[in-house]
Amino acid sequence: MKNIDLKKYSFRTDLVHESLTYFNQTNKLETVFKNNDIEVTRVEVDEKCGNLISKKPGIYYTISFNQDISITQIDQKQEVFIKYLSQLLKETNISKNDKCLVIGLGNSKSTPDALGPCTIERIIVTNHLDDNNLRKVCAVTPNVTGVTGIETTELIKGVVKASKPDFVIVIDALAASSISRVNHTIQMGNTGINPGSGIGNSRKEISHETLNIPVIAIGVPTVVDAATLVTDTVSFLEKHYAYQKQYQKSKAHKLAIGTTNYLNKKVAVDNKEKKDLLGMVGTLNEDELKSLFIEVLTPIGYNLMVTPKEIDFTLEKFAELIGLGINIVLNENILKE
Amino acid sequence: MKNIDLKKYSFRTDLVHESLTYFNQTNKLETVFKNNDIEVTRVEVDEKCGNLISKKPGIYYTISFNQDISITQIDQKQEVFIKYLSQLLKETNISKNDKCLVIGLGNSKSTPDALGPCTIERIIVTNHLDDNNLRKVCAVTPNVTGVTGIETTELIKGVVKASKPDFVIVIDALAASSISRVNHTIQMGNTGINPGSGIGNSRKEISHETLNIPVIAIGVPTVVDAATLVTDTVSFLEKHYAYQKQYQKSKAHKLAIGTTNYLNKKVAVDNKEKKDLLGMVGTLNEDELKSLFIEVLTPIGYNLMVTPKEIDFTLEKFAELIGLGINIVLNENILKE
Amino acid sequence: MKNIDLKKYSFRTDLVHESLTYFNQTNKLETVFKNNDIEVTRVEVDEKCGNLISKKPGIYYTISFNQDISITQIDQKQEVFIKYLSQLLKETNISKNDKCLVIGLGNSKSTPDALGPCTIERIIVTNHLDDNNLRKVCAVTPNVTGVTGIETTELIKGVVKASKPDFVIVIDALAASSISRVNHTIQMGNTGINPGSGIGNSRKEISHETLNIPVIAIGVPTVVDAATLVTDTVSFLEKHYAYQKQYQKSKAHKLAIGTTNYLNKKVAVDNKEKKDLLGMVGTLNEDELKSLFIEVLTPIGYNLMVTPKEIDFTLEKFAELIGLGINIVLNENILKE
Amino acid sequence: MKNIDLKKYSFRTDLVHESLTYFNQTNKLETVFKNNDIEVTRVEVDEKCGNLISKKPGIYYTISFNQDISITQIDQKQEVFIKYLSQLLKETNISKNDKCLVIGLGNSKSTPDALGPCTIERIIVTNHLDDNNLRKVCAVTPNVTGVTGIETTELIKGVVKASKPDFVIVIDALAASSISRVNHTIQMGNTGINPGSGIGNSRKEISHETLNIPVIAIGVPTVVDAATLVTDTVSFLEKHYAYQKQYQKSKAHKLAIGTTNYLNKKVAVDNKEKKDLLGMVGTLNEDELKSLFIEVLTPIGYNLMVTPKEIDFTLEKFAELIGLGINIVLNENILKE
Repeated sequence: MKNIDLKKYSFRTDLVHESLTYFNQTNKLETVFKNNDIEVTRVEVDEKCGNLISKKPGIYYTISFNQDISITQIDQKQEVFIKYLSQLLKETNISKNDKCLVIGLGNSKSTPDALGPCTIERIIVTNHLDDNNLRKVCAVTPNVTGVTGIETTELIKGVVKASKPDFVIVIDALAASSISRVNHTIQMGNTGINPGSGIGNSRKEISHETLNIPVIAIGVPTVVDAATLVTDTVSFLEKHYAYQKQYQKSKAHKLAIGTTNYLNKKVAVDNKEKKDLLGMVGTLNEDELKSLFIEVLTPIGYNLMVTPKEIDFTLEKFAELIGLGINIVLNENILKE
Repeated sequence: MKNIDLKKYSFRTDLVHESLTYFNQTNKLETVFKNNDIEVTRVEVDEKCGNLISKKPGIYYTISFNQDISITQIDQKQEVFIKYLSQLLKETNISKNDKCLVIGLGNSKSTPDALGPCTIERIIVTNHLDDNNLRKVCAVTPNVTGVTGIETTELIKGVVKASKPDFVIVIDALAASSISRVNHTIQMGNTGINPGSGIGNSRKEISHETLNIPVIAIGVPTVVDAATLVTDTVSFLEKHYAYQKQYQKSKAHKLAIGTTNYLNKKVAVDNKEKKDLLGMVGTLNEDELKSLFIEVLTPIGYNLMVTPKEIDFTLEKFAELIGLGINIVLNENILKE
Repeated sequence: MKNIDLKKYSFRTDLVHESLTYFNQTNKLETVFKNNDIEVTRVEVDEKCGNLISKKPGIYYTISFNQDISITQIDQKQEVFIKYLSQLLKETNISKNDKCLVIGLGNSKSTPDALGPCTIERIIVTNHLDDNNLRKVCAVTPNVTGVTGIETTELIKGVVKASKPDFVIVIDALAASSISRVNHTIQMGNTGINPGSGIGNSRKEISHETLNIPVIAIGVPTVVDAATLVTDTVSFLEKHYAYQKQYQKSKAHKLAIGTTNYLNKKVAVDNKEKKDLLGMVGTLNEDELKSLFIEVLTPIGYNLMVTPKEIDFTLEKFAELIGLGINIVLNENILKE
Repeated sequence: MKNIDLKKYSFRTDLVHESLTYFNQTNKLETVFKNNDIEVTRVEVDEKCGNLISKKPGIYYTISFNQDISITQIDQKQEVFIKYLSQLLKETNISKNDKCLVIGLGNSKSTPDALGPCTIERIIVTNHLDDNNLRKVCAVTPNVTGVTGIETTELIKGVVKASKPDFVIVIDALAASSISRVNHTIQMGNTGINPGSGIGNSRKEISHETLNIPVIAIGVPTVVDAATLVTDTVSFLEKHYAYQKQYQKSKAHKLAIGTTNYLNKKVAVDNKEKKDLLGMVGTLNEDELKSLFIEVLTPIGYNLMVTPKEIDFTLEKFAELIGLGINIVLNENILKE
């Protein structure tokens, strides 16, 4: 592979789970809930680990599920979301009467980026009411710099000055570094967020450091770049190849192929096989592969950020799950009042 | 009329033209443009006049037109709007490179209140671009307190701190105190705005005094209360009656009635006739009439704010007229670039 | 009143309840449900009564409620709606497996006219599924002739040919002839509908006669014309006047006025008082009054169809109430599946 | 490559240009317009060619452009669209007064599928007007079977019966079989359309055969499947590799790489190099590659239909280009009236 210029593109993901995997730190992950469809992991990133994986120290919960949320009931996922968001608030020392500002980042006119604004539409605000039984809640959608002309972090600082909350919950659509994460993960953490970081923009972070109050960030990966999709596919191809070789001896093979989820099967590909299958490309590790495809696709304008065709329906479901979930976490009985 | 309790309701309108009419100060109005469809008046309210009519001192332009904007071309109205908004900026000492923050007040989810947000969607922002040929423009929609939980004026102060503009243009839907104004008037002034003042809310004003920079306010009356509509109708009834009496002698009467715009005709009703026609109600002046109908309708919940059925289409046209107009006024050549 | 040309405008309303009231036939109405907020009446219009009140013979249910639906829970109203829609289907001999086409009339771009399209968005269609446990349901929004260029009844005949239903449910926004009905009534009947009849258009009716299958019509009055609003106010004024006269002797008067719902009080105005209060206008009956105000407002372009400012929120609630209600009536367990 | 089961998936695309390329029939394509950004090709598919490439005989125009339509002026593209749509109508023997029904296929709630409905919103209908100077135009959005429960072709037959047009223009979002086509192509033809054919559904075709009148189809590819994206990338990788090898000798190499659009360069890869680079995968032709990736991605649920993140903005531009274009083609002076 000497002939290919493998200038390193730095690994970049909004998801702590992916960072830990990338840097072989998955032993830090603790599975705190698991059933057929849903798994929740928790990780407490300390300073040392944070430096290694380029994430800020703090607590992260990652909810993953297998089923497509656009066509399934959300009840159970919402229950889990409510449980671990409450847990995270507790671990961040948010108390029951602390005033909350909920911020929906992103552009409401761009479907894959509209998670924040769509969720805010479901938030029940109470700050202007004269009801002492309710926690004070405000909610805003600062929109994106391309629409307002104002740097988003600056705008949020202004809103914080105006509304004086005790803590912030910020919701944003993320970029994933693996196709399997897209629309199948909710990440929550107490270390803030760097809007647009996952997709290469450089707006400043929204965090305790910049706002002087705790910032809970909730994100869902809704897009992935083409290079990631291709890299994932190469890795699937290798597994598929190995699976086929192993099962070809079995007579059921002809029927099985094309319908079997071979990802669930235990198969291994050795380096020799990889090289036979994919030549020089087969000798690259995942990071090198992605760098290569970024290098191939970027100059010709095809390293598109893509999103599944069903994104409109998926987004509605996530906004409902997260929006109503936040309402219940912030004011337990609000939907019964 | 002794038997009716005429507790005075204070006269209230967002439109300076209506205030001047009410307080017999129309001599202060100067017609600066007039053709078949469109009339533009200008008034410079000084301190004394301002105290009398309860408006802040400053310059106001009022564009009125006869045609229904939802079904006519907007080109000429837009040209006039551009001319007098430019004029107003000049008279307010805004210079060519002053940075502008455009604010769209109101609730995007409530059609008659959505003029501000709908207009902002058409504003071209430039503040984040690196183009010295363009005036810096930002744009935000702060939404309403019922949706954000935050007092709107406070929120705007926060946005002004974040974006540091030299002046503000604020756009809002207004309440009229005459049915003929609804969707047929654009008011522009350099004295700021008190959001919701026209419809009885008490949020604080957005003005040079509160923001420390000039505030240009652009408003369109889109709603009217039922008491106003009834009061207007009583006054039309009197004119209709007088017109009929006068023209009944003419043989063309039977054909004419029902299609003639009698408002354009010169007819007079004397007090005796009014009393015959309308009894005690006929002895009341316009202000007393409106007070009476407010008193009749309010306790039974029917002093509704109403809007014409076609409001969705009307609003689109106003947003286009004003939004594109502002773009051209702020950056003359922007649509050609 | 000799001097005023009282050319009769024919009484016109989409609501059978108003027609019965107008023609003194309220004795035909049977109250089938009543609590603090909600009342349901049933009437079976026979041929003779139908001719008198200009409504087609058949069964009508009218659900009326006092509370503003945009700010209250809809649970109980929805329960009542489900009960009496089921009842109406039974009385129309619709059986459990009959295939249903749900049609949402109106223009989705015009809020007060969008009840039909908004409700259709909530209808669960099943016709294309292979599930024999479910009743077959289709749903369409034919839009209005101004948008499609096609006569709506013709379009619906085409859709009926394409989908071959056993019966039709059609949903439409109506015009009321009384302000108190607007957004406070749901009418259901089995005699079809004449789209636009309430607001003066002349499209052909959608009924058993034109489609050859039963047609259930569900309507909510969302608009009222200005003449109606003024006529109602004159009638309120008379009651207010009578109430005041009667209670003026009582010491509590000064406090009471302005907050008391005098419509609930038993007071009577005699003709002498009416004439004192309102002159010649006071001698007119309700029908003459409305004709007069139509004559006053129409030639000057002010007999606007108006709708309350909150219509966007109200409409959402009605669409939810009716849409989910229809789903449960058509497929009892669909929301549990 | 013996070990991989290359069960053939049939080649499938909505674009005639791609079919001709696939079957080596590009010699049939005639370039009728070309400038820096835009190229228009025309092909008349005869029976024999049609059988070969699985397209119906008829005339097709394909407009391709390099620039991203979401961020560029559409004026020139629209001019070209108008010219060749007019041409196509002439070649289909549509005469100036023939009545037209414009049909917008697709689901308005799913952005990448909403081209049809979005375009219809811009169509000026005239069929209901009494203006003999205008061609009669109707317009409908039949929505998708999942929303109506009715088979779309049946629904359209019903609409055709109701509106009795002389010809139909149908607009739909398509699937491409090459990433470079997505949002960079408009195809027009006079052979009808098979809704959903490009994405594997099996609804019946909308054509002269099924409707008995000419059917003009206008389509824009807005989605692509993941297997296509990966296949394209493998082919780019080969070109990139060849380009690098060739230019590595030049000193400018280090600067050039990463920014050069190597697709425009003349470079060749021989089979030996392909095999070195990509092993067995390098020995497959494009069709085999795509089959392979479909086989890899489908059983694990990742052969997603994807769309670029900017689809919302792109779609708006296409709807404007096509909608206004159709208006001008159907009624030349309509925008001036």
